[in-house]
Amino acid sequence: MLNHPDRLLPADPNVRAVARRLLAEVEHLPIVSPHGHTDPRWYAENAAFPDPARLFVVPDHYVFRMLYSQGVPLEALGVPRRDGGATEQDGRAIWRLFAAHYHLFRGTPTRLWLDHAFATLFGLEERLGPDNADRHYDIIAEHLARDDYRPRALFERFNIEVIATTESPLDELKWHAMIRESGWGGRVVTAYRPDPVVDPAFEGFRDNLAKLGDMTGEDTFSYQGYLEAHRKRRAFFKSFGATSSDHGHPTAATFDLDPVEAEALFRRVTGNAPVSAEDAELFRGQMLTEMAAMSLDDGLVLQIHPGALRNHNGAVFARHGRDMGADVPTATDYVHALRPLLERFGNETDLTVVLFTLDETAYARELAPLAGHYPALRLGPAWWFHDSPEGMKRFREMTTETAGFYNTVGFNDDTRAFPSIPARHNVARRIDCGFLANLVCEHRLDEDEAAEVARDLAYGLAKRAYKL
Amino acid sequence: MLNHPDRLLPADPNVRAVARRLLAEVEHLPIVSPHGHTDPRWYAENAAFPDPARLFVVPDHYVFRMLYSQGVPLEALGVPRRDGGATEQDGRAIWRLFAAHYHLFRGTPTRLWLDHAFATLFGLEERLGPDNADRHYDIIAEHLARDDYRPRALFERFNIEVIATTESPLDELKWHAMIRESGWGGRVVTAYRPDPVVDPAFEGFRDNLAKLGDMTGEDTFSYQGYLEAHRKRRAFFKSFGATSSDHGHPTAATFDLDPVEAEALFRRVTGNAPVSAEDAELFRGQMLTEMAAMSLDDGLVLQIHPGALRNHNGAVFARHGRDMGADVPTATDYVHALRPLLERFGNETDLTVVLFTLDETAYARELAPLAGHYPALRLGPAWWFHDSPEGMKRFREMTTETAGFYNTVGFNDDTRAFPSIPARHNVARRIDCGFLANLVCEHRLDEDEAAEVARDLAYGLAKRAYKL
Amino acid sequence: MLNHPDRLLPADPNVRAVARRLLAEVEHLPIVSPHGHTDPRWYAENAAFPDPARLFVVPDHYVFRMLYSQGVPLEALGVPRRDGGATEQDGRAIWRLFAAHYHLFRGTPTRLWLDHAFATLFGLEERLGPDNADRHYDIIAEHLARDDYRPRALFERFNIEVIATTESPLDELKWHAMIRESGWGGRVVTAYRPDPVVDPAFEGFRDNLAKLGDMTGEDTFSYQGYLEAHRKRRAFFKSFGATSSDHGHPTAATFDLDPVEAEALFRRVTGNAPVSAEDAELFRGQMLTEMAAMSLDDGLVLQIHPGALRNHNGAVFARHGRDMGADVPTATDYVHALRPLLERFGNETDLTVVLFTLDETAYARELAPLAGHYPALRLGPAWWFHDSPEGMKRFREMTTETAGFYNTVGFNDDTRAFPSIPARHNVARRIDCGFLANLVCEHRLDEDEAAEVARDLAYGLAKRAYKL
Repeated sequence: MLNHPDRLLPADPNVRAVARRLLAEVEHLPIVSPHGHTDPRWYAENAAFPDPARLFVVPDHYVFRMLYSQGVPLEALGVPRRDGGATEQDGRAIWRLFAAHYHLFRGTPTRLWLDHAFATLFGLEERLGPDNADRHYDIIAEHLARDDYRPRALFERFNIEVIATTESPLDELKWHAMIRESGWGGRVVTAYRPDPVVDPAFEGFRDNLAKLGDMTGEDTFSYQGYLEAHRKRRAFFKSFGATSSDHGHPTAATFDLDPVEAEALFRRVTGNAPVSAEDAELFRGQMLTEMAAMSLDDGLVLQIHPGALRNHNGAVFARHGRDMGADVPTATDYVHALRPLLERFGNETDLTVVLFTLDETAYARELAPLAGHYPALRLGPAWWFHDSPEGMKRFREMTTETAGFYNTVGFNDDTRAFPSIPARHNVARRIDCGFLANLVCEHRLDEDEAAEVARDLAYGLAKRAYKL
Repeated sequence: MLNHPDRLLPADPNVRAVARRLLAEVEHLPIVSPHGHTDPRWYAENAAFPDPARLFVVPDHYVFRMLYSQGVPLEALGVPRRDGGATEQDGRAIWRLFAAHYHLFRGTPTRLWLDHAFATLFGLEERLGPDNADRHYDIIAEHLARDDYRPRALFERFNIEVIATTESPLDELKWHAMIRESGWGGRVVTAYRPDPVVDPAFEGFRDNLAKLGDMTGEDTFSYQGYLEAHRKRRAFFKSFGATSSDHGHPTAATFDLDPVEAEALFRRVTGNAPVSAEDAELFRGQMLTEMAAMSLDDGLVLQIHPGALRNHNGAVFARHGRDMGADVPTATDYVHALRPLLERFGNETDLTVVLFTLDETAYARELAPLAGHYPALRLGPAWWFHDSPEGMKRFREMTTETAGFYNTVGFNDDTRAFPSIPARHNVARRIDCGFLANLVCEHRLDEDEAAEVARDLAYGLAKRAYKL
Repeated sequence: MLNHPDRLLPADPNVRAVARRLLAEVEHLPIVSPHGHTDPRWYAENAAFPDPARLFVVPDHYVFRMLYSQGVPLEALGVPRRDGGATEQDGRAIWRLFAAHYHLFRGTPTRLWLDHAFATLFGLEERLGPDNADRHYDIIAEHLARDDYRPRALFERFNIEVIATTESPLDELKWHAMIRESGWGGRVVTAYRPDPVVDPAFEGFRDNLAKLGDMTGEDTFSYQGYLEAHRKRRAFFKSFGATSSDHGHPTAATFDLDPVEAEALFRRVTGNAPVSAEDAELFRGQMLTEMAAMSLDDGLVLQIHPGALRNHNGAVFARHGRDMGADVPTATDYVHALRPLLERFGNETDLTVVLFTLDETAYARELAPLAGHYPALRLGPAWWFHDSPEGMKRFREMTTETAGFYNTVGFNDDTRAFPSIPARHNVARRIDCGFLANLVCEHRLDEDEAAEVARDLAYGLAKRAYKL
């Protein structure tokens, strides 16, 4: 059986019994997905997904990184090359290669997500492997060709109440407009991710600023015009449902320069001279504080996703570009880094800053103490490499005792892998119910309270924290 | 039921059965509290505690920080303002606000401590909430008015064999004198916490030195006079039962300068010029080594509590002062930081240095390897944010295999919240018994040994390590 | 009973039942020991071990460090002094002192290893303590005098299929030659550990280079000659079965200088002027990259064991020398440190670099993400202080979800304590089976898959990763 009804619940029979009861209350609650990277074009065009490999393998860096780590070339998995060089085009060939390496995913969340999708979407009951690769491929391909497996139908089948995508300020949001105009009832909102125009190290930063100026009619090479352009684009994003911004910086550094210094910095990073690493860091940090100031005005929730060293593998980046599974977390300080922003806005009760981390050592040491004190702070869920059963357990074990449950914001699936969305939320619900069941069985929490918390973690907190 | 007899014991029935047997041997052992922050005035004057809010909410930063993090102003919780500005004075109003937010403490140790006190001291059986806030308030208030709920009666009810308070060298110890003169049999000792006169960054450092000079008749602006003044005050503290000193520095840095450098440093930090951050750190670190030297002479156990960045929230500090729940741990190095002290005194078998940490990453990586080698080192228990069920489990899981149980020193409650003392010791005993029961059930330890260790962890080690 | 058949298996009856079935498949598989520090002279000469104390106490830093931490002088345990000063010579006296402190090892892996050896090798059934110290001593001593307790007999009794020792390039490998010439069938291979000739901070570095020159006929004071000397010695080591090199640097730093810079650096570190700490670090890091280049040619697996601050205790080092239990781990960066080597060789599928750590915070944050992407990387098992039940659990919990099982390399015993070898492998097999059993009972893995993984972790991965 691919998707056992007791999967991920604690093994102890008494604890499992409590966990089952808690899960029964939350397993079928609608999905609130306040942060993620699905493609709005899917919902706009509602075209069928092309084939099993292009749905499950080619776009999923969790999948192809594992095979690559064991010597499988990315080209053989159909991952496009920047130079247009040859890559495998036959979906079935890619699928067979994937199936032949399926054992690599033993013990990983990817395996859980895939098996969940295989079982619930396609009725598959056998574990994928070299022997049944073709059969699985055929069954999945047949389903994908059906109308009730197009994106909107899946969206409804997945019981998604609302999903946020993530776009650059330079995006015209045309797919979002098309969704709206289509009259379809699915709720898809955008989120404001301004990295291309706040990070001086981003490819084409100056060109991006020029484009931002064109889009807004502001002089984006003056600091005030630049800030005003952000305000306009944030308002535009809000008109497409955005309730949050998102910031993916190398560190959590924030700064709060005085206006004269800030203007001078802006001139340096937008001038013709090369931008120093220090100035780039300073500007990114200053912009986090500026974004917090704008959030106080327009109500967008500010998300900070720091700590990934992107594109660690130069050769893979040169050949295939970004998001190739070669991003690696680094040790991340929060206690000093966030202080400038918190000194200015930490006591605001109308601001919500959601902190994420790839450095679990910060959970108990820095993040829970900060979120357990500052009114403006909340903790995002276990993220990316830690969006996994053990990662989620560690998140709860290391944050709850200091920050409680109510300084956290429920689950984010954060994914571009559409069929994994229900699986990911389901994993989170199961792990949280198991964690709560253990508290109940150790008499640290009453079961009626645990049920209330379970509903909040599965549904209520995400809606409230993200104002959805 | 607020305080289930099996609370915190492992859920597995076999492990729980062993844990119950171990707990039965230690649950009612007397409390040895070698380090904490209760107010000696309570024991000296033996006045009734004013009201439930002023006992449980207003003075407890664990409590009010959590409500503050969710937007409740500290003023509404009766936390005094430095400027004398208005704060809520009605204990019942504070209590209702607290009760309305009691769900925030789900899954936290604060909840366990409060429920323990509510149940064992006041016979309360219902979970606190908005509906029963007044009833709880009335019942607690009635009890607090009774003579058998005054501090000394509670001290005896709590079965405290000995408790240490913590005082500055500038303290006259008049409450300790009053306790002694009263003829009451309760054993309350002091501990020597010289931060105000060893930390050049402490408010009023130079004035404090002058006062220290007045109290001791030493020239505290000469290094030798300054050191001699410490020796005299340590002797005075010993005459009030002190067996330890305590040091709460930002880092664990120690230094061992040669006498000429040390004198020059002393002149710099006590002169009229502003003291550099480097010199302040250097002097604090030098003084740890000097204190170790004095400990070799007078036998005081030296405790190091490093790694808190104090008063992270400038606005709250300005409005309410210190200890407002706004201290945040930082990454803390021990292996390099302690080396100068250890080079000089680490091999002394007559010295005991007890190390604490707020950075759990140091447990397995640095603290257990250090304590598992140096005769002078012992590990203090899980501290502050980590004084919690999960925190204690992680402490045992990450220190025992390298340092064993006998390089640890039993439990510290470290609290200023008097009614939480029995609860905190009880939590520690339960977690330790659960940890030991698991070792027994996995056949890593025999049950007779586990029982002996349980008694040592609950009672014997604290008495021996702290010479109480 | 000293060695319960269910020891270390999870306490839950259902999980334990699965774990037992998995263990039954792997408990008696042959031992593949790809990395360790046993003395090849034992296998060459096959002399009887001298006495119980000299087998179990005197040479084992895990044992004597714990007694030292509690005030027992190393001299009393027979640990030799560099100055030839008096130390206890009476094995029985040492043994009694050890037995009197046996309680210190409660909860430690040392206790498990010792009890395993006492039970399986000598039939002892009682826990060691002061009362039975002499009886244990006598029984062990009798056995050690027997022919079937000599090294080769134990090797066969332990079911060792192959064991690697570790030697310096300056070693003539005469014991290995003697083993080969003896015609004995035991497979003992060497491994290439060039610290004495790649670390400019190593005692006698320049003399070592000169000796390396003599041994190889190369001019080891020219960079090309020096590198060629390595190649020759690696080939010589390969002729004695070596399949790996090993590198124990203070950090994981690697560098990839251009040839001109590398030559200039080589001249600086081999010249007569004192070598700066920066240059020493730079050269060690450069040599890791050079060794990776050689590995691509000759196929040796490259092991990196970074992060120990050696000889932390100056007094103990002065009196007793290296490896006295006074090495302490430090925080260790991998993500930046390894990048130069990985930029050059990380995508090579014919290279295997095995990474170890003493800093567990790197498992989930850096090591699993790196090994889950780069084809050239694999993760070594939990090491040294973390070679323990809890340490192994943390290793699996923090690496599996991102790197899977197949980017790990099975178990290393890494020991110089011969009788602990079967115990250590047995502990690893039990912990892995318990971890897998939990995955099975939480329906995260099918039992047939778990059995296959168990066999790979116990046997297959080590053979394949180390090409043994």
